Amino acid sequence: MSLVLETATEGGAPLWTPSEFVEQLRAVADARYHHRHPFNLRMHAGELSPAELRGWILNRFHYQRHIPIKDALILSKLDDRELRRAWIRRIHDHDGRSGDEGGIERWLRLGEAAGLPRQRLLSGEGVLPGVRLAVDGYVNCCRLRPPLEAVASSLTEMFAPNLMVTRIDAFERAYRWIGDDGLAYFRRRVTEGRRDSEEALELVIRWADTRRGQESAVAALSFKCDVLWSLLDAIAAGYGGTHD
Amino acid sequence: MSLVLETATEGGAPLWTPSEFVEQLRAVADARYHHRHPFNLRMHAGELSPAELRGWILNRFHYQRHIPIKDALILSKLDDRELRRAWIRRIHDHDGRSGDEGGIERWLRLGEAAGLPRQRLLSGEGVLPGVRLAVDGYVNCCRLRPPLEAVASSLTEMFAPNLMVTRIDAFERAYRWIGDDGLAYFRRRVTEGRRDSEEALELVIRWADTRRGQESAVAALSFKCDVLWSLLDAIAAGYGGTHD
Repeated sequence: MSLVLETATEGGAPLWTPSEFVEQLRAVADARYHHRHPFNLRMHAGELSPAELRGWILNRFHYQRHIPIKDALILSKLDDRELRRAWIRRIHDHDGRSGDEGGIERWLRLGEAAGLPRQRLLSGEGVLPGVRLAVDGYVNCCRLRPPLEAVASSLTEMFAPNLMVTRIDAFERAYRWIGDDGLAYFRRRVTEGRRDSEEALELVIRWADTRRGQESAVAALSFKCDVLWSLLDAIAAGYGGTHD
Repeated sequence: MSLVLETATEGGAPLWTPSEFVEQLRAVADARYHHRHPFNLRMHAGELSPAELRGWILNRFHYQRHIPIKDALILSKLDDRELRRAWIRRIHDHDGRSGDEGGIERWLRLGEAAGLPRQRLLSGEGVLPGVRLAVDGYVNCCRLRPPLEAVASSLTEMFAPNLMVTRIDAFERAYRWIGDDGLAYFRRRVTEGRRDSEEALELVIRWADTRRGQESAVAALSFKCDVLWSLLDAIAAGYGGTHD
């Protein structure tokens, strides 16, 4: 039955070429990545109050601390030692390694620079229900979906470096009450995000060897955009318009 | 309801002291670890034919290659960055890292030293159904059970170093047709197993803070002994008595 369905699908819709496939992925992100979210636009326009910005930092930390979890779940789906040896670096990038404090620590320092004690972030207190649901949804996608979709959901990284560059500029311009040390996470992700997304895109292009597979990868990226968008929806609903 | 049950259990059966708890764990392994399995006794007595030994190496490789998978699943259950930074070392120990070929590669070399091309092992061809089921059972335990049980199931490592020492001696004595280079995996696991089991035991003692938790850890170790025992049952049934 699987064979019949596959043939039918392929008869109806031919495999995209790699560049057509990448175009489909880019089109999803262009329309639905959270760079277009009103809360993000306000952040980058320098319009967030300190309370709003702290609300974002605290809630986004709930997402950040789950990145190594979702990457461990993806790791457990890779049956090739070489692939695991490449993917495991992402876990170290966030958890840290000897001589590198790691992304979670850098985010905690962003919180401290914004006046949020690290124990407040680590406690999970104040994380909004919609943020918890969005993060659970993402982790469960990586837990339950095939490797192709789990890896494709990470392709928002293709668009993160540009977002980081804009964000660093916005923080340096509009949120100078947050010291420069607080921005180390954003700075590091410019290069890490480029390298991670190039590797992930190569895997997705290689693994998606049917049109259905390609479409499932596009859908996974679209789902991940929904996760990030919902996260900002919840933060905007919870903190939007609040002032110190 | 959980609270009521907990109190009832604790009323009926008090928490073991750490040394009583360790004694319970040791008793399970003493009775049921695969050092007592007839196939293992024959291996260490130098009684296996080359065909039997190759059958064991090929099938046990199916277990070995799943160790990083189960460790990635355990990693995904650890919500503490420091714990993950310790546990992740196990994945590198098997998959390898810069300057260390890793345990999977060492097992492939054991195969080659015994006359099994690495492609034969990597293909998975000839892995017995009972071995697949045993390994699936172990991986699913680490996927589905709470962290305490997943980590407790790794405590067979407490007993592995002694087994390795006996095994190295047996191979040097009785299976000299396998070159010394083939034994690197066993040699390395003597020290890695000691360190891994000490760390895991410390976690299990700390996490098992109810009698029910302690009993679940003992049951998890017992289950893991069943996994290893069933694996040898399947190999004994598949290869026992075969000669080159």
